[in-house]
Amino acid sequence: MIRISFDRDSAIAVGLMSGTSLDGVDAAVVRIEGGGLSAKAKLLHAYSRPYGDELRERLKDLCVPERSRVDEICGMNALLAEIFAEAAREAVRQAGLSMQDVDFVSSHGQTVWHIPGERDRTGGSDLQSRDPAAVRSTLQIGDLSVLSKRLGVPVVGDFRPGDMAVGGQGAPLAPYGDLILFRDEARGRLLQNIGGIGNCTALPASANPEDVFAFDTGPGNMVIDQAVWLLSGGRMTYDAGGAWGASGTPCESLVDEMLKHPFFRQAPPKSTGREVFGKAYTADFVERARRDFALSDADIVATATAFTARSIAQSYTDFVFPRCRIDEIVVSGGGARNAALMEMLAELLPEQAVCSSNEFGVDDDAKEAVIFALLGNDFLRGVPNHLPSATGASRPTVLGKLALP
Amino acid sequence: MIRISFDRDSAIAVGLMSGTSLDGVDAAVVRIEGGGLSAKAKLLHAYSRPYGDELRERLKDLCVPERSRVDEICGMNALLAEIFAEAAREAVRQAGLSMQDVDFVSSHGQTVWHIPGERDRTGGSDLQSRDPAAVRSTLQIGDLSVLSKRLGVPVVGDFRPGDMAVGGQGAPLAPYGDLILFRDEARGRLLQNIGGIGNCTALPASANPEDVFAFDTGPGNMVIDQAVWLLSGGRMTYDAGGAWGASGTPCESLVDEMLKHPFFRQAPPKSTGREVFGKAYTADFVERARRDFALSDADIVATATAFTARSIAQSYTDFVFPRCRIDEIVVSGGGARNAALMEMLAELLPEQAVCSSNEFGVDDDAKEAVIFALLGNDFLRGVPNHLPSATGASRPTVLGKLALP
Ligand SMILES: Nc1ncnc2c1ncn2[C@@H]1O[C@H](COP(=O)(O)OP(=O)(O)OP(=O)(O)O)[C@@H](O)[C@H]1O
Ligand SMILES: Nc1ncnc2c1ncn2[C@@H]1O[C@H](COP(=O)(O)OP(=O)(O)OP(=O)(O)O)[C@@H](O)[C@H]1O
Repeated sequence: MIRISFDRDSAIAVGLMSGTSLDGVDAAVVRIEGGGLSAKAKLLHAYSRPYGDELRERLKDLCVPERSRVDEICGMNALLAEIFAEAAREAVRQAGLSMQDVDFVSSHGQTVWHIPGERDRTGGSDLQSRDPAAVRSTLQIGDLSVLSKRLGVPVVGDFRPGDMAVGGQGAPLAPYGDLILFRDEARGRLLQNIGGIGNCTALPASANPEDVFAFDTGPGNMVIDQAVWLLSGGRMTYDAGGAWGASGTPCESLVDEMLKHPFFRQAPPKSTGREVFGKAYTADFVERARRDFALSDADIVATATAFTARSIAQSYTDFVFPRCRIDEIVVSGGGARNAALMEMLAELLPEQAVCSSNEFGVDDDAKEAVIFALLGNDFLRGVPNHLPSATGASRPTVLGKLALP
Repeated sequence: MIRISFDRDSAIAVGLMSGTSLDGVDAAVVRIEGGGLSAKAKLLHAYSRPYGDELRERLKDLCVPERSRVDEICGMNALLAEIFAEAAREAVRQAGLSMQDVDFVSSHGQTVWHIPGERDRTGGSDLQSRDPAAVRSTLQIGDLSVLSKRLGVPVVGDFRPGDMAVGGQGAPLAPYGDLILFRDEARGRLLQNIGGIGNCTALPASANPEDVFAFDTGPGNMVIDQAVWLLSGGRMTYDAGGAWGASGTPCESLVDEMLKHPFFRQAPPKSTGREVFGKAYTADFVERARRDFALSDADIVATATAFTARSIAQSYTDFVFPRCRIDEIVVSGGGARNAALMEMLAELLPEQAVCSSNEFGVDDDAKEAVIFALLGNDFLRGVPNHLPSATGASRPTVLGKLALP
């Protein structure tokens, strides 16, 4: 019998998350007591290392099939791990700890491609003639061995492929952590993360794992960011505080059209990414906004923001509210700092309290990093660390890979 | 303390190797007693699953930066794992065993890119502005989680990045297994593997780990295969038995020129791959052979064969024979079946016995698969599983990653 022996009740972990918005890597130093659904996580310190423009543009290109290259993917896999290692080291230092105090690191990695697909991958007859670009699969880079050798601690990571291998979409994984961190006996909660992509987790009051459901709502900051980047001629990478968007007027009829994208009609579980709402999508949107609607730059940013807010709210009315009572909407991710977006959301959802996850003691940026620390903790304890109800997996299984120092 | 507990003295493992020549995946069912340098491996059954032309061409394209795409790399990472899983399953069935009898699988994966580089990757100042395509790194596909979930056993693999992370070239890894399998008290042995690339391991008589050295000698079958493919208009993928090559006359002056390639002058440790001696290299060679030397097709194949043989022999006279006495040269890999190549080698090396690894009870194709089973075994036992003297690593460390079923 091969198993991992992990003899600690309480562990110090560093969770690492590099999200689809490519703004940087978030590192969370966490004390974790126990494992599974009864684990308790205490965030000791959160640290973010931003990516410079050069790195961000390189990463974006890696995510575009026509521009991606195997040599750059290969090198970036190692290079990002070095950058992750520096971020982990700095987070630990700022927490007043040393790497000797750390039991393990758990890293999500950087997703460069994700094919949630619909096709079954277990069929055996003619595997060899399948078109690889259509095979259900997911690719995260930031090599675990490089991280582990560099930091001198065990590193767990690369969680998504295991979920896909048992029939899941490989996403969303955060709901498992959301259940651990935010489950409430009396109140139904909807956790909305607004990173590059928007995703939500519905936690009915006193939820069991099989009651939880979650899905990507569509773009998070991705379309706003890319529109701002285009309109500012590359000088701005996001709409700080939502100021630009707030200064314009959304074109609701264009938003109506945008919401006709088939992704929004698809029933959960569902996931999406840069391959759907990336550079090409936004370039088209900006061109249409100018050509067919004669919108000003401010109106275009306002429209991108309204599109994001309405895609989120519509997801709730279509797929969440009919299924369970929701009392609070807890927003996390960088989008919680976009006041224009938050205001639109509150307006679209008058019956729920819309608040930020900060109010729960889990810093916005750090939440996902904390959650990936929890997933790594469960890998080491041999506990299934995803929710099949959220990903569509056929059974609970232990996700992740382990590299040793 | 996090460690792997593995309570067996004797294990049944499946080693999987998919080499640079892209001809298929070799699976070796092995009984391993103990671990480290005193491990004993007994091959129970060897099985090869060939890749069809369509898959091989797709894989080749993935290894060409200009033609490679992130979506195809992502999908192929999952798809190859499915193909590996089928091969492992069939090998186990043919061995008269069931997956329940198997303790673990250990997979090399398919290398799609390898940058052994010279640049240090540990420096910290401006990581973010490095050109990823120049970063020392290596990329193997065939996802370990997919393999593990599909087969229901723990899977170890992805050994190369860990060696690079401690300053090694990530290759060659086979010498560690060669030392376990072929060390002799009295005779100095040179193990020559002729796969896509040629690589040799020098095992002086009664060698200790630090006495072993190894390096890539240059192309193995790669240039011959590609030339045959071009000259046959894609109808042949290799020169079966070396018949075509034997029917022509090598142009020694063209070989003299080809041996001026800087790779051959470089002192070991050194490694190379499809990125140096791949499609483009061979297309140039064929064009020159026709234009400047007016060679017939048979002469071109003979010249490719002579180039391969002489690059191997010259590597020995330059880098091996000056350092230690060699009595036997043991050839493994598909190239051992190319009689023309074997004859040229024997002629070029009159003072050594040139034989095939079959004579040692380790089937040609299976040798590397057996070796990767040994590397996985040592990962699980926490034993460093490479030779820094061969890879240039700064210290011995445990290579690999683990996925659980
Ligand atoms: N002050 C701010 N004002 C407006 N938007 C902001 C602000 N700070 C961050 N953002 C937005 O949040 C984004 C980063 O969010 P976050 O770090 O949660 O995303 P991520 O984790 O990379 O993505 P994902 O969760 O989709 O993987 C930025 O790209 C930006 O659009
Ligand atoms: N009967 C044969 N006659 C001539 N050449 C052969 C024969 N059988 C195999 N080969 C050659 O051997 C190659 C396969 O060798 P092998 O399986 O050892 O390589 P590999 O493991 O894929 O590569 P590497 O060891 O470089 O990673 C084929 O591509 C072909 O060129």
